[in-house]
Amino acid sequence: MKNNHIKQSETILTGDRATGPLHLGHYVGSLKQRVELQSNHKQTILVADMQGLTDNANNPSIVSENILNVVADYLAVGIDPKLTTICLQSQLPALTELTMLYSNLVTIARLERNPTVKNEIHQKGFARSIPAGFLTYPISQAADITAFNATLIPVGDDQLPMIEQTNEIVRKINSLAKKRVLNECRPLLSKSSRLPSTDGKSKMSKSNGKPINLGSNEKEIRQAVRSMYTDPNHQSIDSPGRIAGNVVFTYLDTFHSDIAYVKQLKEHYQRGGLGDGYTKAILEECLQEFIRPIRKRRNELLRDKSFLIEVLKSGSKKSQIETKKVLLQVKDIFGLNILN
Amino acid sequence: MKNNHIKQSETILTGDRATGPLHLGHYVGSLKQRVELQSNHKQTILVADMQGLTDNANNPSIVSENILNVVADYLAVGIDPKLTTICLQSQLPALTELTMLYSNLVTIARLERNPTVKNEIHQKGFARSIPAGFLTYPISQAADITAFNATLIPVGDDQLPMIEQTNEIVRKINSLAKKRVLNECRPLLSKSSRLPSTDGKSKMSKSNGKPINLGSNEKEIRQAVRSMYTDPNHQSIDSPGRIAGNVVFTYLDTFHSDIAYVKQLKEHYQRGGLGDGYTKAILEECLQEFIRPIRKRRNELLRDKSFLIEVLKSGSKKSQIETKKVLLQVKDIFGLNILN
Repeated sequence: MKNNHIKQSETILTGDRATGPLHLGHYVGSLKQRVELQSNHKQTILVADMQGLTDNANNPSIVSENILNVVADYLAVGIDPKLTTICLQSQLPALTELTMLYSNLVTIARLERNPTVKNEIHQKGFARSIPAGFLTYPISQAADITAFNATLIPVGDDQLPMIEQTNEIVRKINSLAKKRVLNECRPLLSKSSRLPSTDGKSKMSKSNGKPINLGSNEKEIRQAVRSMYTDPNHQSIDSPGRIAGNVVFTYLDTFHSDIAYVKQLKEHYQRGGLGDGYTKAILEECLQEFIRPIRKRRNELLRDKSFLIEVLKSGSKKSQIETKKVLLQVKDIFGLNILN
Repeated sequence: MKNNHIKQSETILTGDRATGPLHLGHYVGSLKQRVELQSNHKQTILVADMQGLTDNANNPSIVSENILNVVADYLAVGIDPKLTTICLQSQLPALTELTMLYSNLVTIARLERNPTVKNEIHQKGFARSIPAGFLTYPISQAADITAFNATLIPVGDDQLPMIEQTNEIVRKINSLAKKRVLNECRPLLSKSSRLPSTDGKSKMSKSNGKPINLGSNEKEIRQAVRSMYTDPNHQSIDSPGRIAGNVVFTYLDTFHSDIAYVKQLKEHYQRGGLGDGYTKAILEECLQEFIRPIRKRRNELLRDKSFLIEVLKSGSKKSQIETKKVLLQVKDIFGLNILN
C-alpha cells in the first residue's frame, strides 16, 4: 500500500470520459493507483458518458461504443467491482439535477476564466462556437464530486482548477445552508510523471499520435515500440546515446521490474555499444508481458458483455441511492422540498 | 370557446416562474386563455421553480414561498386540475437530463444572441456576471417543451425567440435520429394586448410598480385604482380628457362587461364633465367584483395546503411518466441505452 500517507476512510471519486479505450498512460497516471486505493478506501469510478458527449454530441457513437470497453479495461487491470463501485454517469439523474442547481451559483465569466477549459477550447478550436455543455462541464464535475460527498480526488495537475471550482460551489452551498452539508475535497496528485507519447512530443493520449491501448495486440505493441522516439543523434551502435528524452528508457523505467538491470542498460547506452534495436527488443518483451494478461482478461470480458453490464447496473443502482440522498439535501437548501 | 381556429388535440405546455403571486396582467395575458383551452386540448402547466432559481439562487425562498401561491392562483381563476395537468418542474428529473443533453447542441454564441435573454441580462444588470443557469435557460425551456412533445405554446411576442431556439434543437435531434422523434412547436400569441402597469409606464409585472395581484384585498385594489395614471392634462372635471394612455379606460375596456356603457363613459370623458374620481370609482367596483370570488377561493385553498400539494403531486407523477418516455427516446439517439 503505497498511499499510506492518506488518512483512512477517504471517499474517493475518479472516472474517465468514455470516448476511447484506455491506454498505458491511463494505467501509469491513474489506474494503478486506483487498484492500490480500492482496498482501504471507499472508491467510486464514474464512467463519464454524459461528459464525453459535451464535445461529441454530433457523433455520439464515439461515447456509446466505448462505455463497455472502459469497464473491461478497469476489470482487466485489477479494479475489483466488489471493492470499487463502478457506475455510469447517465444513469444518475441526481448528477444532472445538482448540475442545474449549481449552474445558478457560477457565472459565465468564472467558467471562462477556468484555465483547463480555456486551454481545451483553444486546442479544440471552439472559440465562441463552444457548446454550452462544454463550457459548463466543470459545474457538472462539481456535481459528480459532491453527489458522492467525495473527499479525495485523484487528478493530474492540469485538473486542479476543477477542484478549485468544486470547492467554491461547496462553500456557496454550505453558506446558503448555514451549515456544512457538503465536504470540500482535496486533490490526490499522481506520484508518477505523465507517460510520454511514443513520439516523445507530449503525453500519451488519444489525440497525440498512436497510444498503446491496454487491449493492444502483439503486432500493435511491436509496431509502437519500433516507432518509438529515441536519440536522433545516436547514429551508430558504437556511438554514445542520450537517455534524456529517450522514450524507450522512460518506458523501461516505468514498466521494467529490474531497476538494476535498466540502470546497467542506461550506462551501456550512454557509453556506446548498445543499439536502439536492442533496447527496443527488451522494452517490447517487457510490454508484451505486461499487456498480455490484461488483454486476455479484457477480451474474455468483452466476449460476453452481460457481466460488464451487470457490474455497471449494480454500481449505478447503488450510486443512485447515494447521490439522491445528497440531491435531497441540496434541494432542501433551495426550498425544493414542499412535495416531500 | 374563443380559440376555435386551433386544430383539435393540440398538446399545450405553458407555465410560470414561481417567483411571486400572479396578477391581473397574468390573467389577461394568459390565465384566461388557459381556462378556455383546457376543455378541448391536452394542456399541461409547469410551475417553473427551477427556472425561478436561475436568478434567485442566493435568495431561494422567493421561489419556495410562491409555489403554492401560484397553484392557488391557477385554481382560483378556474383552471381545473381534472382538465389541466399542473406539475412542478423540480419534480421532473427528465427535464434536467434533457437540458444537459441539449446543452451539447447549442453554442454559447447562440445563447448570447437570444434577444429576450440579452434584454433580460441588461435589465438585471448581469453583464458577464450572469449565472450560467440564466444564460442557458432557453435550453431548459426547450427541454420543458419537448419533454411533453408540446405542439402549441401560448406566449407573449417577447418569447418568440424561445420557440425558435426550441425548434432549432428539435431539428438537430431529429437530424441526429434520422427520423422525427420530437415535434416542432408553434407559438399561440395572446389576442389581448399587454395589460399596462397602474402607472402606465410599462406592462404590469412584479418589477414595474405595484401589480394588482389576484389575491389583492379590497384596500389594495382601492389604492391601486386611486393611484392609476389617467390624463395629466385633465385638470378639472369640466375640461375634456384623453382616453389614449389613460390606464383607467384601458382597464375598463378589459374588465367591464358592458361595452356600450364604457363607450358612453369615454365619450363623456372626452367631451368634458366627467371626473377621474368618477371613472375610478366605476373601475374600482368592477375590479372588486372581479377579484372578490377569486380571492375568496384562493384564500380557501391556501388555508389548507394539502389539496394544493395533492394537485401538484398527482400532476407531477403523471408528468414524470410522460417526460421520462421522451427522455428515453432522446437518450437512445445518443446511444445512452446500453443498460436498458
